[in-house]
Amino acid sequence: MSAPVYDRVALIGLGLIASSMFWAMKRAGLAGEVTGYARSAETRATAREIGLCDRVCETAAEAVEGADLVVLCVPVGAMGAVAEQIAPHLKPGSTVSDVGSVKQAVIDAVGPHLPETVHFVPSHPLAGTEHSGPRSGFATLFDNRFTLLVPVEGTDPEATARLRALWEGMGANVEEMDAEHHDLVLAVTSHAPHLIAYTMVGVADDLRRVTDSEVIRYSAAGFRDFTRIAASDPTMWRDVFLNNKAATLEILGRFTEELFALQRAIRTGDGDQLFDYFTRTRAIRRGIIEAGQDTDAPDFGRVLPRPAGKTEAGKTEAGKTEAGG
Amino acid sequence: MSAPVYDRVALIGLGLIASSMFWAMKRAGLAGEVTGYARSAETRATAREIGLCDRVCETAAEAVEGADLVVLCVPVGAMGAVAEQIAPHLKPGSTVSDVGSVKQAVIDAVGPHLPETVHFVPSHPLAGTEHSGPRSGFATLFDNRFTLLVPVEGTDPEATARLRALWEGMGANVEEMDAEHHDLVLAVTSHAPHLIAYTMVGVADDLRRVTDSEVIRYSAAGFRDFTRIAASDPTMWRDVFLNNKAATLEILGRFTEELFALQRAIRTGDGDQLFDYFTRTRAIRRGIIEAGQDTDAPDFGRVLPRPAGKTEAGKTEAGKTEAGG
Repeated sequence: MSAPVYDRVALIGLGLIASSMFWAMKRAGLAGEVTGYARSAETRATAREIGLCDRVCETAAEAVEGADLVVLCVPVGAMGAVAEQIAPHLKPGSTVSDVGSVKQAVIDAVGPHLPETVHFVPSHPLAGTEHSGPRSGFATLFDNRFTLLVPVEGTDPEATARLRALWEGMGANVEEMDAEHHDLVLAVTSHAPHLIAYTMVGVADDLRRVTDSEVIRYSAAGFRDFTRIAASDPTMWRDVFLNNKAATLEILGRFTEELFALQRAIRTGDGDQLFDYFTRTRAIRRGIIEAGQDTDAPDFGRVLPRPAGKTEAGKTEAGKTEAGG
Repeated sequence: MSAPVYDRVALIGLGLIASSMFWAMKRAGLAGEVTGYARSAETRATAREIGLCDRVCETAAEAVEGADLVVLCVPVGAMGAVAEQIAPHLKPGSTVSDVGSVKQAVIDAVGPHLPETVHFVPSHPLAGTEHSGPRSGFATLFDNRFTLLVPVEGTDPEATARLRALWEGMGANVEEMDAEHHDLVLAVTSHAPHLIAYTMVGVADDLRRVTDSEVIRYSAAGFRDFTRIAASDPTMWRDVFLNNKAATLEILGRFTEELFALQRAIRTGDGDQLFDYFTRTRAIRRGIIEAGQDTDAPDFGRVLPRPAGKTEAGKTEAGKTEAGG
């Protein structure tokens, strides 16, 4: 194990990303001491119970005291207030970062509060699961996923390089990008897909002629993939949409335009247009698999539990993955 | 192993579903002899090579000769022509079924060709993966998934019961439903979600300001789930949409209405509406997991391959699932 990248790291907010960072830093010995703070007393108690952070503090000010790196891991809408709160307690020469899914709005909200003596290097790990809270983190979350660094103009390159070393040590591939482009790329790869998934699940939940029970039982035909995304943390996602309005609405506009064109092809019976469209979209999937960003196992290699009381039908192949889609 | 449910079964079309049926029937000894036919000589050669079917025939007529059960496993748009072709060769008293994702259109296309001496019991296994072709099948595909039987009015209950026994023997939970309701339920749980996923992937592929390479590298933030669905067989899905127009367009209309309402909430900054919507959709996910229709493992329990040449970051926990979303 090499020398720590930072002697003292403070994590503000202790959800999925912060807890995964803690375990990933511990795995590779990247930080001397890691302090943590969460607004909710329940979360702080859970963190102490499971050994999340070397020291869980009662205030954000206490957590950042003497820290070489402070990472804001709260919902995007809460970043500004937290920055204001910790600003007087930041160590000169230290670095402040965040893990928000939107970057320009965070820069606008956090930047003005920070003293000139600290470096501000926003970041965004493109990793997560549909689970949330301090118990949901794990050390391998960032392995081979991308983390985007969005240094603002005039940032000390040394501070950026050090943060890059931390993320690489946690397993991530690191790229730099400006805030505007980040917010557009994420609108495509994340924000619009999430809103669409939330919408489709909401529609299914709201139909009179198809019962919830039918939707649930027959979800393996495709719908259930949408429900995973639509089970993500509501506070986080509310803040993402409110803080990346322009790019999200632009992509949703494009989406609606295309959807209308395909609806029209269905209505007019234009099979060739549908076939060509559906053939083209296969190539992107292949690219993602070749880039190591998803598994080629059928149906994501899901292994489903067999409900209690269900008898086995014939001989099952031991260990074989169940799949449905 | 009990007595076979059918002495002779013929599978017409040898893709994902037919090949999975063959292996599932063999697993449980449900059929004496299984014959198979595919239009493409290449598919027939592959089937012979991998031992798919006890006997691969050169014509559909030869395959159905003497069969007690004939299952049409071709795209929905090809069902009518296949039925016309095999009709003169069907054994009196035998059962004809199909596995199409749409039921009313198949009943309309197939029914008129069948002699009165055979029973017609349409079916639809709600199972599949994004892979297709004769090599993609596996014996456990239907385990604990639902198969819907859609017997037409006047069908012999004995013929329906026997087909139910076959599907249950292949591991499926079996329910009966009328064709109109089936087509509406599937529009919600499958057809609309597929069109939406195809559309979103098409939009991402078509943007000038975000490169394909960026979409691929940064897909783990949500988008890649859509690409799996959008990698499904284009011919099959073209036929599904052309043959379930009314219900699919109805659900897409509802979807667009809701999407516009959420877009408006984003534009006007109505965080409460977004938060409430995103909270409600979590319940459906819980229902699906409790019903044993999906895994609760983060990110579907995906295990991603580590690309060659990538060094490990620190100590990895052996066997731990990598995840990103």
